[in-house]
Amino acid sequence: MPVYKAPVEDVLFLLNDVLQLERYGNLPGFAEATPDLLKAVLEEGAKLCEEVLQPLNRIGDQQGCTRNPDGSVTTPEGFKEAYETFAAGGWVGLAADPEYGGQGLPFALAAAISEFTFSANLAFAMHPSLTQGAITALAMHASDEIKRTYLPKMISGAWTGTMNLTEAHCGTDLGLLRTKAVPKDDGSYAITGTKIFISAGEHDLAENIVHLVLARIEGAPEGIKGISLFVVPKFLPGKDGTLGPRNGVSCGSIEEKMGIHANATCVMNYDGGTGWLVGEAEKGMRAMFTMMNEARIGVGIQGLALSEIAYQNAAAYARERLQGRALTGAKAPDKPADPIIVHPDVRRMLMNLKAFNEAARALVVWTALEGDIAMRAEDEAERQKSEDHLGLLTPVIKGVLTDVGFRNAVEAQQVYGGHGYIAEHGMEQFVRDARIPMIYEGTNGIQALDLVGRKLPKDGGRALMAFFKEVDGFFAENKDDEALKPYLDGLKRGRDDLEKATQWFMANAMAAPDNAGAGATDYMHLLGLVALGFMWARMAKAAQAKLADGGEKAWIEAKLVTGRYFMDRIMPETAAHLARISSGADSMMALDAEAF
Amino acid sequence: MPVYKAPVEDVLFLLNDVLQLERYGNLPGFAEATPDLLKAVLEEGAKLCEEVLQPLNRIGDQQGCTRNPDGSVTTPEGFKEAYETFAAGGWVGLAADPEYGGQGLPFALAAAISEFTFSANLAFAMHPSLTQGAITALAMHASDEIKRTYLPKMISGAWTGTMNLTEAHCGTDLGLLRTKAVPKDDGSYAITGTKIFISAGEHDLAENIVHLVLARIEGAPEGIKGISLFVVPKFLPGKDGTLGPRNGVSCGSIEEKMGIHANATCVMNYDGGTGWLVGEAEKGMRAMFTMMNEARIGVGIQGLALSEIAYQNAAAYARERLQGRALTGAKAPDKPADPIIVHPDVRRMLMNLKAFNEAARALVVWTALEGDIAMRAEDEAERQKSEDHLGLLTPVIKGVLTDVGFRNAVEAQQVYGGHGYIAEHGMEQFVRDARIPMIYEGTNGIQALDLVGRKLPKDGGRALMAFFKEVDGFFAENKDDEALKPYLDGLKRGRDDLEKATQWFMANAMAAPDNAGAGATDYMHLLGLVALGFMWARMAKAAQAKLADGGEKAWIEAKLVTGRYFMDRIMPETAAHLARISSGADSMMALDAEAF
Repeated sequence: MPVYKAPVEDVLFLLNDVLQLERYGNLPGFAEATPDLLKAVLEEGAKLCEEVLQPLNRIGDQQGCTRNPDGSVTTPEGFKEAYETFAAGGWVGLAADPEYGGQGLPFALAAAISEFTFSANLAFAMHPSLTQGAITALAMHASDEIKRTYLPKMISGAWTGTMNLTEAHCGTDLGLLRTKAVPKDDGSYAITGTKIFISAGEHDLAENIVHLVLARIEGAPEGIKGISLFVVPKFLPGKDGTLGPRNGVSCGSIEEKMGIHANATCVMNYDGGTGWLVGEAEKGMRAMFTMMNEARIGVGIQGLALSEIAYQNAAAYARERLQGRALTGAKAPDKPADPIIVHPDVRRMLMNLKAFNEAARALVVWTALEGDIAMRAEDEAERQKSEDHLGLLTPVIKGVLTDVGFRNAVEAQQVYGGHGYIAEHGMEQFVRDARIPMIYEGTNGIQALDLVGRKLPKDGGRALMAFFKEVDGFFAENKDDEALKPYLDGLKRGRDDLEKATQWFMANAMAAPDNAGAGATDYMHLLGLVALGFMWARMAKAAQAKLADGGEKAWIEAKLVTGRYFMDRIMPETAAHLARISSGADSMMALDAEAF
Repeated sequence: MPVYKAPVEDVLFLLNDVLQLERYGNLPGFAEATPDLLKAVLEEGAKLCEEVLQPLNRIGDQQGCTRNPDGSVTTPEGFKEAYETFAAGGWVGLAADPEYGGQGLPFALAAAISEFTFSANLAFAMHPSLTQGAITALAMHASDEIKRTYLPKMISGAWTGTMNLTEAHCGTDLGLLRTKAVPKDDGSYAITGTKIFISAGEHDLAENIVHLVLARIEGAPEGIKGISLFVVPKFLPGKDGTLGPRNGVSCGSIEEKMGIHANATCVMNYDGGTGWLVGEAEKGMRAMFTMMNEARIGVGIQGLALSEIAYQNAAAYARERLQGRALTGAKAPDKPADPIIVHPDVRRMLMNLKAFNEAARALVVWTALEGDIAMRAEDEAERQKSEDHLGLLTPVIKGVLTDVGFRNAVEAQQVYGGHGYIAEHGMEQFVRDARIPMIYEGTNGIQALDLVGRKLPKDGGRALMAFFKEVDGFFAENKDDEALKPYLDGLKRGRDDLEKATQWFMANAMAAPDNAGAGATDYMHLLGLVALGFMWARMAKAAQAKLADGGEKAWIEAKLVTGRYFMDRIMPETAAHLARISSGADSMMALDAEAF
């Protein structure tokens, strides 16, 4: 059975030493988030994930969800009780608005906790995670009446949320959607259509399910511009939140799929179900994007989370499994063989994961902090800067952390040899579960296009320039720090490759947009590597300060070695990305469709 | 439902135009292998794979194998009939010795056909593939008596074969094995022990199952040197091959696993079962390696095979699925959206697969031809040169083709978006099935160590020097061919990185073996890229000759573009491998085991 220990110490290092959260005491909710409180909340969250959620992960995979003849869905044994515990602990509304019952704590903290939940049980944790996204969308776009009815129930966890975008003939290209909304006399709408791939669309964890649904109001223009967002609850609530009659929405079937078996992926049938407009008519995509951007960071965290739990188990196995002898002579001569962690190729796999996970966690928590600033700062310039950061790094976190997270889960499985392929050890479940984050909330190819086609050119490239400025500021600030040199040198090479790739796009992609499309995925990974490398440089600096300050030596030195490994072994990939980008679209686009 | 069309035309191009098989008419079995015969056999094999084996692939995954209370195993619906058809067609013994009923055709042809079978139905095709490996091991090491009893039955497919190496506490490190063999008066042995992860260890496809089992004769030395190989049949045969009583070997259980559900992965219990020594006592590893080397190439082909069928389906889906518009303007303005094959990022994924598959197939067929020469040539120098090639490239084919084959299956799944994650389309099965070739027959980490630790230094580096000589000879021969320049330039950069990496090992790994271990996987992939790039250069040359000769223009030009894509987008990875190798083992090995 897999083990899991939430990386509380690592998160505290990030919040206290690297990001120095105490500098942000002026933001609402931050003054309360003292180091002691952060520690207490993280430890409580860790305990819940380790003791309640993780032990249900394999049962969830084996039993999956069952759709009953009446259209209801039964989740695996123990999930309902675990959800009650989760909701009762206030975890759904950790960072939500206190006005509606949330705890108002930093999103930076909530993001770290969400990693724990995804590591422990992805299929379970998707339920509250989707709810959190729906809460944000409603909080930002819905009328006060809707907010008053829905938010307290969702923040308490009594009701969960979903996103309903995809239809059978349209996933990425939502302009094609056919679900229609017909206005009724009372100001509500009758929603009719079929949505597919709706995660947590039906289940038995909560008393109500709040569907956020994209649909086209009768007579609205075709294409993406004619789309509106509606809230369509499973049970129609009174204004005070009491449950009324069943609404015209039901789960038609659930998908048989590769992983996340304990989260029902539903076909949802809307048969004239009652919905209310969220935000303005025909501005549905804007409102949905609020939810989607938060969800995309959440999905990126899922990639990290599965990499982390897969890593922890692979490391434990590598310390125990005896096989062969070290190349440099027996390390456990009293045993029939050495533990496989002595072998460089096993180390290589473990270090790849460790070096990625720690930097990815830093990138997530940093970006979540920027999200806090973007939502909560008083100063507009400060908010805008953080919004730029969020806009630029959201597709990177989603695309890179899930691509690498999956690759890492596969690498951790490899440490187990044949034992990794059989179900018993749980490693193959991590791989199957880690596959979906690369796809949902916009495939990673879409993330790359969003980055290159939208986020880079936006506002004359302001966001990327600010990123370069921040990295270059760090170089300037630390140029005389000899101990930081290996980190700065590695980061510099990646940074320069990123600059060259950006210049190549500027010179070649304006006139021939296929050149941008052809390099998009490589560019996303290149920016991701530089961002992760920047995290390592900042962590190395904080670790050295901590060492000077009498921190725990072994822990800090492990941090410093791991950062060096990143620069030695992972950062060199930037050159291959640059070479690919610079080769352009010619050989990629030359063939006729029939030649494939 | 997935589609499959065996790449017959591509194989014929390789056999006739690239390798020019007619040059080898002096080898036994080659004179018969005229272009017409090759075409007829390939087309017949293609038909069997497309029409009989592939349609059973998904059923096999869904039903899996069932172990019955009496220890027998039932394969999925239709497998038994398909196996009868397969055996009756003479496919098991296609390249086997005519003296025992084989057809004696080139292994180069049999290897190409085996790709078709693995694409169509990996779990099914493992049965005859394991049999072929066992046939080779018995043919090379067993007594004439054993050969006369077993080979005709195995070559006809009436009996299947297995490899029994792994025990619960030892996979890679076979020196630890505990299965014991006690000599009996009649010259046979009583075999006792438990083996795990035995593919096709029990099934209902054939009337008998021939287990090749590693065990230690009572009193033999500990460790790898005390191991012998035994043949242990499920039913004891008379000398004429009639079936006698059940032997003391049975399937104790079958594993629940990630994929290849239609091939039972068995725990095999040997309870004093009767076995006969194969080859000399305590020389079991040598005999087993004969089988394992052939099996490793077979497993490498599995990686290619899954990449190929996944590619074909992704390409078909990309041509049909309508979503979004081309960056350069609508390509199908009469439709609601363009087919997704217009998008560069979709092309990128398809071209990655296409450029790999075609080169990997060339590398397989070339290496299989070298295997034919090594087995069949009269001239010893010629045989030795081919054996060197086989030794050097076997771990590369196994490690690189399965690593990349898996990555490609994942990339093909990605083309489907959310539809790739649900079981219906079959893409997720390809991913689950493609995962095992990276593990079995020696994990890919072991392949890399075999390459760097054994194959490189062997005979003073003779094999690698011969490889360089062949590549450099190609450069010299074609240096004035302007049309080949893009291919030669790309190959040259990879070749130079390979040379630098080799020199780095020579300078740094002798004294510090961890430096070799730390770079082994990267070196294997670097050599793989150069070998694949060499294949592209040779294919480009053959394609241009064919074009000049009036061959089909569109097909040849697609070949030439695909080779350019390989040089543009895939070959640049060699630089990252070199950078990693040159960083050595320091940051990889610095941490204590407890720091993970």
